[in-house]
Parts: sequence; structure tokens; C-alpha cells
Amino acid sequence: MDNLTTMKVNVDKWLISALREDITSEDITTNAVMRENKLGEAQLLCKQDGIIAGLEVFARVFVLLDPNAKVELHFKDGDRVKNGELLATVTGDIRAILSGERTALNYLQRMSGIATHTRALVDLLEGSNTKLLDTRKTTPNMRIFEKYAVKVGGGYNHRYNLSDGILIKDNHIGAAGGVKEAIALAKEYAPFVRKIEVEVENLEMLQEALEAGADIIMLDNMDTETMKKAVSIVDGRAETECSGNVTKERVKDIISTGVDYVSCGALTHSSAILDVSLKNLHQI
Amino acid sequence: MDNLTTMKVNVDKWLISALREDITSEDITTNAVMRENKLGEAQLLCKQDGIIAGLEVFARVFVLLDPNAKVELHFKDGDRVKNGELLATVTGDIRAILSGERTALNYLQRMSGIATHTRALVDLLEGSNTKLLDTRKTTPNMRIFEKYAVKVGGGYNHRYNLSDGILIKDNHIGAAGGVKEAIALAKEYAPFVRKIEVEVENLEMLQEALEAGADIIMLDNMDTETMKKAVSIVDGRAETECSGNVTKERVKDIISTGVDYVSCGALTHSSAILDVSLKNLHQI
Amino acid sequence: MDNLTTMKVNVDKWLISALREDITSEDITTNAVMRENKLGEAQLLCKQDGIIAGLEVFARVFVLLDPNAKVELHFKDGDRVKNGELLATVTGDIRAILSGERTALNYLQRMSGIATHTRALVDLLEGSNTKLLDTRKTTPNMRIFEKYAVKVGGGYNHRYNLSDGILIKDNHIGAAGGVKEAIALAKEYAPFVRKIEVEVENLEMLQEALEAGADIIMLDNMDTETMKKAVSIVDGRAETECSGNVTKERVKDIISTGVDYVSCGALTHSSAILDVSLKNLHQI
Amino acid sequence: MDNLTTMKVNVDKWLISALREDITSEDITTNAVMRENKLGEAQLLCKQDGIIAGLEVFARVFVLLDPNAKVELHFKDGDRVKNGELLATVTGDIRAILSGERTALNYLQRMSGIATHTRALVDLLEGSNTKLLDTRKTTPNMRIFEKYAVKVGGGYNHRYNLSDGILIKDNHIGAAGGVKEAIALAKEYAPFVRKIEVEVENLEMLQEALEAGADIIMLDNMDTETMKKAVSIVDGRAETECSGNVTKERVKDIISTGVDYVSCGALTHSSAILDVSLKNLHQI
Amino acid sequence: MDNLTTMKVNVDKWLISALREDITSEDITTNAVMRENKLGEAQLLCKQDGIIAGLEVFARVFVLLDPNAKVELHFKDGDRVKNGELLATVTGDIRAILSGERTALNYLQRMSGIATHTRALVDLLEGSNTKLLDTRKTTPNMRIFEKYAVKVGGGYNHRYNLSDGILIKDNHIGAAGGVKEAIALAKEYAPFVRKIEVEVENLEMLQEALEAGADIIMLDNMDTETMKKAVSIVDGRAETECSGNVTKERVKDIISTGVDYVSCGALTHSSAILDVSLKNLHQI
Amino acid sequence: MDNLTTMKVNVDKWLISALREDITSEDITTNAVMRENKLGEAQLLCKQDGIIAGLEVFARVFVLLDPNAKVELHFKDGDRVKNGELLATVTGDIRAILSGERTALNYLQRMSGIATHTRALVDLLEGSNTKLLDTRKTTPNMRIFEKYAVKVGGGYNHRYNLSDGILIKDNHIGAAGGVKEAIALAKEYAPFVRKIEVEVENLEMLQEALEAGADIIMLDNMDTETMKKAVSIVDGRAETECSGNVTKERVKDIISTGVDYVSCGALTHSSAILDVSLKNLHQI
Repeated sequence: MDNLTTMKVNVDKWLISALREDITSEDITTNAVMRENKLGEAQLLCKQDGIIAGLEVFARVFVLLDPNAKVELHFKDGDRVKNGELLATVTGDIRAILSGERTALNYLQRMSGIATHTRALVDLLEGSNTKLLDTRKTTPNMRIFEKYAVKVGGGYNHRYNLSDGILIKDNHIGAAGGVKEAIALAKEYAPFVRKIEVEVENLEMLQEALEAGADIIMLDNMDTETMKKAVSIVDGRAETECSGNVTKERVKDIISTGVDYVSCGALTHSSAILDVSLKNLHQI
Repeated sequence: MDNLTTMKVNVDKWLISALREDITSEDITTNAVMRENKLGEAQLLCKQDGIIAGLEVFARVFVLLDPNAKVELHFKDGDRVKNGELLATVTGDIRAILSGERTALNYLQRMSGIATHTRALVDLLEGSNTKLLDTRKTTPNMRIFEKYAVKVGGGYNHRYNLSDGILIKDNHIGAAGGVKEAIALAKEYAPFVRKIEVEVENLEMLQEALEAGADIIMLDNMDTETMKKAVSIVDGRAETECSGNVTKERVKDIISTGVDYVSCGALTHSSAILDVSLKNLHQI
Repeated sequence: MDNLTTMKVNVDKWLISALREDITSEDITTNAVMRENKLGEAQLLCKQDGIIAGLEVFARVFVLLDPNAKVELHFKDGDRVKNGELLATVTGDIRAILSGERTALNYLQRMSGIATHTRALVDLLEGSNTKLLDTRKTTPNMRIFEKYAVKVGGGYNHRYNLSDGILIKDNHIGAAGGVKEAIALAKEYAPFVRKIEVEVENLEMLQEALEAGADIIMLDNMDTETMKKAVSIVDGRAETECSGNVTKERVKDIISTGVDYVSCGALTHSSAILDVSLKNLHQI
Repeated sequence: MDNLTTMKVNVDKWLISALREDITSEDITTNAVMRENKLGEAQLLCKQDGIIAGLEVFARVFVLLDPNAKVELHFKDGDRVKNGELLATVTGDIRAILSGERTALNYLQRMSGIATHTRALVDLLEGSNTKLLDTRKTTPNMRIFEKYAVKVGGGYNHRYNLSDGILIKDNHIGAAGGVKEAIALAKEYAPFVRKIEVEVENLEMLQEALEAGADIIMLDNMDTETMKKAVSIVDGRAETECSGNVTKERVKDIISTGVDYVSCGALTHSSAILDVSLKNLHQI
Repeated sequence: MDNLTTMKVNVDKWLISALREDITSEDITTNAVMRENKLGEAQLLCKQDGIIAGLEVFARVFVLLDPNAKVELHFKDGDRVKNGELLATVTGDIRAILSGERTALNYLQRMSGIATHTRALVDLLEGSNTKLLDTRKTTPNMRIFEKYAVKVGGGYNHRYNLSDGILIKDNHIGAAGGVKEAIALAKEYAPFVRKIEVEVENLEMLQEALEAGADIIMLDNMDTETMKKAVSIVDGRAETECSGNVTKERVKDIISTGVDYVSCGALTHSSAILDVSLKNLHQI
Repeated sequence: MDNLTTMKVNVDKWLISALREDITSEDITTNAVMRENKLGEAQLLCKQDGIIAGLEVFARVFVLLDPNAKVELHFKDGDRVKNGELLATVTGDIRAILSGERTALNYLQRMSGIATHTRALVDLLEGSNTKLLDTRKTTPNMRIFEKYAVKVGGGYNHRYNLSDGILIKDNHIGAAGGVKEAIALAKEYAPFVRKIEVEVENLEMLQEALEAGADIIMLDNMDTETMKKAVSIVDGRAETECSGNVTKERVKDIISTGVDYVSCGALTHSSAILDVSLKNLHQI
């Protein structure tokens, strides 16, 4: 997210919205004790080992509040950081630093938590050909930040939303009257640019999906043995995705099936934050 | 959040924004396989024991997409729910149900996760006079939902944002030139309606805060013994808040200090979701 | 666009915005001559042969202004309509009909013009395996309406925007250091769900793109003979797209090359409108 | 549109909205192949003879994405440009240039197409006292750009919208109970600043409108002879406007009637774009 | 403002914005004491004699919060109301009534204050040919309500804003190089629909403005005698406006000059409110 | 309001909104007579004695329109200013000065009018312990500016809105079933940070409120003697507020009761503006 276009077009509006959530009329405490503009400096400190993500977003918050604010970054997104390390130095109007602190940290902590969680799973998959995917189970109005954090952690993004990917699930299959019919309808409706993914629950549906020309097949709720069979039936004719709880214990089994991708909703819906803190604010 | 005014003024805009995050142009898959309006029904099922929160928000998503949609709720916010229970039945245009499903669940799961986490801690505090508070460490643009979920779980809300409460922290004290000066400035700036809270790190600061007339004193980073002394020094002249990691192990100690409130950022920044699922969509 | 979810989430905001563009404070003329609410009826008449598109959008404008307005449609999007035919009947508050008329017609006329233009080219392609695509050369803030109109006219949509498709052009190839490198970077960055399309200018680049595993190859600015060679080299290993001026004269040549798709910017940037008119408003 | 106030207050919001239409989450292709900020330069080339309009809007898109971008303009709005000419040079972050290109060109091409169309008709009217007007038949959410382009092409703007002009049409006359009554109601309702225009279909209505004190009379659907008579009856007591298809063939006839203005909807609803292109992007 | 189109397109957004100004997260007091939806009724009582304006706006606030709310109006905008009269009865969810009360009253009181002030001046002008105008000196983001209130009070609206009228003031004359030049530039720039008004300070400027063809002449800061001369020089060739403090004392003098219009900024910038009150809320 | 964070997060959106209210498409007069960017200077002159408030807001309008505009302030908010004094000098693009003038002045005049009114009452209270409060009777969408102006004038702010304070009125008491019950519900619902204020009409209610632990008691509609008794009964156990018409005559009586606060709605709903003017614009 060091791309200024992304900031201007897709990020700033969320940051301003979050700042307005935190400041309805004014920051009363800050305005009470600091009646004028004074230049200050504060340190962003790491309080927990992990992967840092969202440093540019963190910095952007202060620049939106004070165009003369400077944030010197000592790390970049994706770096491993350790408890006690100095991550960045913020310089600017003390009131902007105080008023923006919580919003900036709320983004940074959550994004880093997701990146750290993602990296832990990616490390388990290392050496295999199976890649880790996120899902649409993101926090509302946080998707752009959360999907980016997954990438920073070494994961890959599944479709961004309902408009940029086709994923035919059981309900769609029911509505269409069968796997074959659903895929045909999708091919007719949106044949170009997008791959067509289908969720299958057993090997019969898998066979049907393959014959209908699915690009990606999601193996839903299969045991390891069935999944192995499924991957071997597919035999490279489509990409395969395993959806489900990716725990340390299960990873080995999943890898053993040879599936191309495994998706994990918990990356974005249940990661704990990474603890970072803004400290030592002082006038300069 | 069953208050329609709250929905209209403070909630709808977030739901619409989240729906737009998930649907940029159209829901391609749904539109491909379902070419016309058909009435359907689906079941909201609980997949994990916990406290449910956000049922009205869940329902609202579908009503925003289809004004004729009906969501029959079988539980209400704050109820304990168990894996396997039927929480609600959604009826409406099948396309609205499919397109709104993810957004509705993303809210419900996160809010219920927070309520469940909160309730667990509140249960530990039962029998004591110490109450559980949330913080401003919420997910950006989710505060209204997350603070509500804390209340549903039995917790209490700290100030909503920087505009509706005064909390003087170390940096403010530094800027003002001392605890006494900071409190005086705050009393001068905003004497009415709002209570003045000050964060103190030791018993000297505590004494100074009491003398300056603080309404609430946050005991920061004190060990149990110091905290006990602090509470006894305060002796009812102000409310006391203990800020810090509330773990099962620490709860007993905290209660023993007699502190009025304990605040916990993890409620909103690190709760795992509660698993619920929309199933059995079928035409009716 | 008869999908209510699409209307609510993606369309209404544009209609309201267009109405505000046309009514800053009030509709002075209407308010001057009609001082009270009266029920009226008007007829939507076709003034030119073509393909109608946007009827639901047309109707929606009146319903947004008067929730009790009714628009009875006598045709559906995609139908061939003829000069003189009655397309729809609008009933509602006369003031809402008068104030919404121009906005409703501006959408309907433009969308129908695009559908008519598209259908004319699609008819020329009939019998071949070549399909017609649109582009991102749409009128700003009109894309959702214009891309829909292309579909109504029988065309297919290329990617919706820069976020839901990968199309590597000459400038991207230059930046990456070559076709192969660009495709590799794209596969690494966004391997999932999206197909990777590359624009090639000659047969060497084509060869390189095929070897790098492009999913779609855009044949840029090639004469008919070279394009034929290109298609035969590809031999089904990727989809092929020919970009350029699709005129009556050229269509036969394009079809003869066996290319899968031909894209045409003029559909959305240079179609004349289809003339339709709202007439015979009278009190009922 | 080189007025910064207009840009800030009335234009920027549309440009940002159009950029968001084209970039939902990020520009995937650009971000995949260009991982960092690099300064680049590109050339805006003319591909077709015509009148250029929208150069400041074109430039503004890049400045919104990259505040350090510079666009050196070699022409100004209203200039005749020729195929092959270098219109402008864009310098800035390569990623901003790539991501903004399509939006900037979509505005420039459409505005220039309208200016070119307008100029062609204005040239036909040269030497006469009849002036060319636009209408409210603009593309939704594009009016400010399209009406400006008409002026750049030498045309004049009719009222901007329903709030800043009074134009009494047949339906209003019906509602009011007659030409005289309608004009009286309008004079009573909004007597100040605005001129009152009435549409008349025959010489009786014309007479009535004149007597009632209309400022402008629109001669609707009259043959050349009747229009001549009408203009001679008016005899300078009001301005006259002829509404209808302005084709090369009809222009002479229209001029011969001595009418003051002729309005033409096609300027904004059916102009083809002027082809311009951004080329030769390279790092500097 | 009983026009639903005006409400939907131009009013609702302001009401929602005002409600959000008053309710950031929730109405704490109401939610604390009323935990569920109960149907209630309240009375809108007049506390001061005057002209009522904004009844439909008042009613709309409650309908936006509770679509089932009903507001029975016993008067209509423009009516003279007396202290103690029952103006309306509001029925709906008690919580919606409580939460919307202040916003609804803030609009109604201010609009009625303006209407009452306006009517007092209009009454003084009665019997003369001089009409009362408002100005652009309105409260920011309240113009649509305040200009409407002036009309309700019997006044007339000057131009709505900078985009729908031409008013050449001293600074514009200076920039253009003279009255004549300024009028010529304005006629060239925007000859159609809009009248051209010029502010003149003496009889020489007046003469020049008349010769240049101004439609309206504003007589700025002239004593009664000069104004009389000015009106007699104009002699019907243009409309005349006197701008300045309209006090009871001055009204007779102003009328005696025969000027067509007198404009008064105080109507919108310095009117006291009219006191009205919502009382007797009770459950039904 | 010299705090940049407040400007960015809470003020700019209102200023831009007000500018759009005044400029729908363009400033026609200015664009007609000034065809290019020229640097100019103008003087902000005081036309009436009073307290100035809103100078930073005034300046901000011009900077939003022209980032190179400079506004040199010769006074600061809260200063007493006198008719004829030069308050500030504005330098920038002449067109930005002309187009922003009215909006900038509308804010400054209204804010200064409120500050002047407030100061007059504060002066009357001088020497007493009674402080002046504002109310929520502000002009819709102007609250942040009007409450700030009250502070500038020496008054204090009551709660900002329904979300940041608890004020239990008669209707709430009715709904809860009594003063005691209402306070208990409020303490249960929102016990933290916020003080609980209750409106009482007689000494019985007062007694009940005190016993239930209200933090602030509003004495509603009591005569001077009763109020004196009330204050003496309270005897420092709660803060007291007197609500009602604060006129010169009544002030002495109010002070004599020893009440802590007196609130006055007229400060924000019925203050006349302070006259200031932008003059002598000239090119530099």
C-alpha cells in the first residue's frame, strides 16, 4: 500500500471515515491541554514479535491530519519485527499526533495481526505446492486492508468480492438445476476474463464439474482420502482449492493431497492483533 | 440495536457501504444462475456455543436489499445459543438472500464473537463490584457495532470517542506541565456534563489527581498491592479504573483490589468470531 | 437490471446523483404551475427502431421520486422496438413525472443507443465463433449502465475495471522488462481467480506470451493475414482477442481469422442515442 | 475549466468518483509489474482532427493521483488540433500515469467530441444572427463537462437545470389551463432574475405568449414558413428559439427565418468522441 | 415544500445530516429509559404569534426515523398562528419522537422565524408596487430552507446562488474595466435564459448600465432623492432593486421612490426564531 | 478552531458543502468578467462593534479554493473588534476571492454574532459563580460552528448531542415510571464517563433526584424563590442548572439563587449577525 493512487482513490476515504468515527466534534482532551500548535515527535514501538503490515496506512493517518507531518519508517510491510524494536518515528503537530494515534494504531495492529497469522500458516505450507488463500469473511468496511495484510503475510487473495469472480456454491447449483447447468449459465453470462470456480461435495459432482469445464474446483468438506482421489481425478485439468479449518494438525494432511490452494477464513475474521504502541511523545 | 432510529441514522450507512464493498457492479454468480426474482427461504444456524449479538443488524441487511424480505428471529441479542440451534429464518428474493448473506454474516459473527468473549470475562467478575469496560481499540469503522456487542455481552462502554469524554494520559500531562495543571485546564475547557478521567502511574500522581478533583482515576500498570493501596487512598472520592490484560488468572487479583472498573482492549481487537451459518436456501 | 439488489446497492446512488444534477433547489417551472399533488399518467413512446435497454432504470427514477408511482412496461430490455410503439405507461404524481422525465429519458436513450449499436455488430458476427466485447472506454460514472447495455445488445463484457482483471499492455511489458517477465510477475501477484491477458504486437511476442502461460492474448493492430497466423499458432492454448475498429467492411475479415473475441470501444464511447419520448401526460 | 474554484468545488468529486469506478481495490496489473514509485513521462497525441476540450480536466486526473505530477499543455481548450500533433506531456509516478490514463482520456475524448460537433454546426451558422444552444439531454452525471464542451466549441448554454430556468412546455400549459395562465403563475412564483420561456406550437399560442409577457418563445415543430411568420410577429418583443434537428440541410432554412437561437440535443447525446491517445510512457 | 420530489432530491439529505449531527452513536437517554418500541403521541404547540413555515419539513424528520409515523397538520405553511394553538399531532414510535424532536423543531422554529420576519416587512410594503427580496446571506447549508421560508412569508427570492444568476458588482466592474465592458462580457458569456443585473453607485453608472442593456439595476447606497431620480431615469427600461437596511422608518421612503424591489439580508441572517414546542408525549 | 485536525476531520466537509450550495456549476459572473487567474488582495473590515469568532474558518474557505491563498489575520477569535477596524487581509486568485467571499462571510458573521451575544450575557454574570451554557437549539448542520462561537464568547458548552450526554426530561421520566426509576435505568445503561442530568419541576422531584444520585439537576421553570430553596436543598451534592430566558432583567435574580449554570437557547437560535465585509479587492 505504498502506491499513492491506491491511497488517494481507495484508502483515504476509509481513514477519514475512521477519524470521524473517533472525533465527532473535536478531541476535547487534547484541545483542553494543548491550546496551540507545537511540533512533537513520538516513537512507534513493537510490543510483540510478528509480521508488520500497514506502516504506510499508519503514516497516512498523520499526514491527512497534518500535511507537514513526517513518518520515518524503519521497517517495511512484511518484515519480521521483534518486541522492543523501534518501528517508526512520527514528527508533526503534537495535537495531530495525539488525535490520530488511536486510529493509526487500530489499523496497524489489526493488519499486522492478520499478516502474522498468515505468515505462521504459510510457514507450515513451505516446501509444498499448496498455497494459502483468504476468503470474503472479512470485517465489514475493512476488506481492502485485510486482503492486503494477507498478501503481506505471504498468502494469496481469493476473489475480492461478488463482482470480480464466479464461485458457484450449492445454492447456485440448486437454482440452476445441476452442476453442468450452473457452469453453462456462468459461461454464457460472463465468459471472459474471469475463471469459473465450482464447489463440489463428492466425486460425482467433481466429475460433472470437470466435464462442464470449470476452471477451479473447490473441494468442500472432504476427508483426506477423498481429497487425494479428487486431486488425482482432476489431474491438472483444473485448479483445486480445499476450503476448511487449516490447523497445524491438518496442514500435513492437506499438503499430502496435492491440492493447489487451501483457503482460510480465520485469517481475516479471527486473528488477534499484533501489539504495537506509540510512545515518548515530546516537544521538539 | 432494535431501535429503528439508530438503524436509520447510524447503522444503515455502514451496511450499505459494506454491501458496496462486496458488490461493485453486480453479483455475477447469482445473476448468472438466477435470472429472475424467486421467493426463497434460508435458515440461520448456530455452529458454536456462545452469546448471539447483531441479529437485528443481520436482518436489516436483507431488508435493505429487498424491502419485502422477512427475518423471523428465534432468539434475541444477548441470548446464549448452542451449536445446532436454529437462530432465524430468512424469507425473500433468493437473489437478495444470496447477495446479502456474506455481509450479514460478517457482522453477526464478529459481533457475536465479541459478545461471547465479553460474557466470559463478565462471568468471571460475577459476585464482585468490579465492572468490565471496553476501550477505543475497535476495528476502524466498526465502533458502533463493536461497542454495542460489548454491552450485549454484559460489559459497559467506556467513552465512545475523543469527543465525548476526557481522558488525560501521560502525554497530556506532560503537555500541561503536571497532573494538577492538566485537570485544571480540562475543568476550564469542558466543565459540564463530562467526567474527567486521569491516568496515573503511581501513588503521588494519584494524590495529586484526587486533590485536583478528578472524577475517574485510571490506575495504569500497577501491581496488585499498589492498586489495593490506590483504591484505599481514593476511598470513594473518585471512580477507579484498572487498565490492562484481563486474563482468567489476573481476574481474582483485580477483584481483590476493589477497583470499580477494569477495561479490556482485547474484547474488540482480538475476539475470534462466533461461527454461524446460513443454510438450506430453497425456493418456496 | 431487474435485480433489486443491483438497484439498491449499485444503481440508486447514480440516479439520485443525476436527479440532483438536474434539480439543485427545486423544479421551478413545475412548482410554479402545479401547486399540489395530482395523479397523472404519461406514455413512453418509441420514436426510432432499435433495441430497448434500461427500462427498469427508467422506471426506477419515478419510483425514487414518488414511491407510489407505477411504471407498466410493455417491453423488456433487449426487445426490438419500432418507431411509434408504446413502450410503457407511467402513473404517479404529475410533479414527479415532470421532474423525473429528463433524467429517466437520458438514461434510457443512451442505454438503448448502445444496445442498438451492439446488436447491429452482433448480427454481423452471427454464424461465426467470434464474440463481441466492450472496453473500459465508457463515459465516466456511467460504466454500470453502459456495460449492462452492451450485454442487452448481445455483446459480452470485458473486465469491469482495473481491479477485476489483468491486462498487460506495452507499457507494462516495458516496465517489467519483457513479456515473459511481466506474465511471471502477474502470476506471482494475483495467481488466483483472474485470467491473465497480454497484448502482443507481433508473432515473437505471441510465442513468448504462450510459453509464459497467458490465458488470453490480445492481438494488437495486426493485419488479417498475421492475425490468421497468430490464431493458428495459438491453436486453442489461449483465448484470442482482436482489438480495433469493427466496421461492417472489416467484420468478414475478422471472422475469417478465427479469433475468439473482437473488442470495440465505440459501443460505449460513440453510440448515438435511440430516440424515445414521454408524451401525453394528463391528469387521471 | 482552468478555474481552480470550479475544479475544487464542482469537478474533483466527479473525477474521484470516476477513478473509483475504475479502481475498486487496486490497479492489479500495474501493481503486479511495477512494485515501486518511478518517475515517468508520456505523450498525449492527437489521432483525429477536431476541437480539443477538457485539457485541464485531463491534467487534473493525474494531479489528483500524484500531487507532484505535471502536465505540460501545448494547446488550450477550443484550439483546432490535427491528427499526429503532440497535445501535452505528462510527467509523474508511472503508476499514477497508468492508473489514471483511461479516466483522463474518457473525459478528454468525450468533451472534445462534443466540442468538435458543436464547432461544425457553429461554422454553418456563421454570418447569421442565429446562435447554437445545447439542451438538458446530457449524459447523467456529466452535465458540467458536456455543457462546458459546448461552450468551448462555440455554442451557448441553455439553462443548466430545472432549478435555474423556467421553460413552460405543453404539459405545464395543460396543467395551468392555458398559455396565459401558465405565464402568470410563473411570473408570480419566480418573477426575479430568471427569464420566462414558453414553448408554442402555433401562431395563436405565440400571440397569447407575447401578450402574457414571455421573455423567450420556443417555436416547436414549425415548418420554415410558419417560423418566419412567427419571428416577424414577435418582432423583437421576445427572444426566439427553434428547437429541433439541426442538420446541414436544414441550417440554411433556419437561418432564413431570422430566429435568434437554435437548440440541438445531439451535441451532448449523440456526438462521437475525438480520438486522442496517451503514448510512449517511459521512465525518466 | 410539500413537493415529494423536492423532499427526496433536495431535502432528505440535509435532514439525515442534521440527525447525524445530533446522534453520533445512539440517543443514550432515550435508549436507557425506553427499551422497546411503544406507540406514542405528542402535540406541536405554538408558543408565540407569527407565521408558520416548515411544517412538512418538521413532519418529514419523524417519517425518516419511523416510516409508520404520522404527523397530522392542523395548519399549513404561511398561516398566521397564535400562542397556544395546536399546530400538529405526531404519532409514532416514542423513541423516534424523542430522538427527532430537537432536529424537527430546530428547522421549524428557524423557518417560521424567517417567515414571520418577512411577513412583517411585506405588510409594510402592502399597497405599493415594491416587492421584498432575500439575498445570498443565508446560513451555510440552510439555503433551501431559508429561501423557501422567505417565500412562505410573502417575499420573493433573488438568485439562488452564484450559478443561476448574474450580478455584476463593483469588483467585477473593476476587473472588466467598466460597466459597459462588464455587461458586454456577461452578455457574451451567458446570453441566454438569465437576466443580467448590475450594481450601480451613481447616476453616471446607471446611464452606462442602461445603455449597455442591463436587465436589472441595483441602486446601491443611494439616498432617497437620488433613488427617485434613478427610477425616473430608468423609466421601465430595466427592473430596479434597492439594496439596504429595510427598517420600518425607511420603508415609506423606499416605496416613494417607485423602486421595483428592495432586498434584505436580515431576513435570513438575523431573524429570531418563532417559539414552538412539542409537548404532552404519551403512550397510546 | 485553529486546530488543523478539527479543520480536516470536522470542518472542511461543511465548508465544501456550503460552497457547493452556492456554486452548482460555476460562478457565472466571475467567470464572465475574469477569464484568467490574477493575483488579488482584499480587506476584511469590521462594520459593527462586537466579538469576532470564526476567523480561521473564514480563512479556510479561501485556502480550500486556492491552496496558495494567504489570509493574514490581524485579530484572533474572542477579540473585541470595532466598526472600521481591519480584521484581515486576503491574498489569492481573484476568482477564488470573489467566489468564496459570501460563504466565508456567512460563517464569520453568524459565528461572530453568537460570540457577541454570548459575551454580553457573560459580562452580566461577571463576579458571580453562575456560568452560561448553550443548548442543542442550534441551526441544523451548524452545531460545530455555533457551539465553538459560544465558547469564544466566554460561554460553556452543554452536551454536544444526544450521544454524549444524558439528560432525563419529563417525557423520559414518564416513560420510566418516575424520577428514581429513570435515574436507575440511566445508571445501569451508561454508568461510565457521562454525568446524569435530570430535569425537575418541583422540590419533591428534586429530592427524589438527589436521592437517586443525579449528577446535575436542571431546575425547570421555577420562580426565583423556589430556585433559591432548590439550590439550598441541593447543597453541593449535585450541580444545578437553570434553564430559561436569560434577559438583563432576570440575570440578577438568577445569580441571587446561587445556581451553578444557566442555559440559554437564544445564543444559537436567535442571535443577529455581526456585520463584517470584504472590501477593496484589487489586483496586485
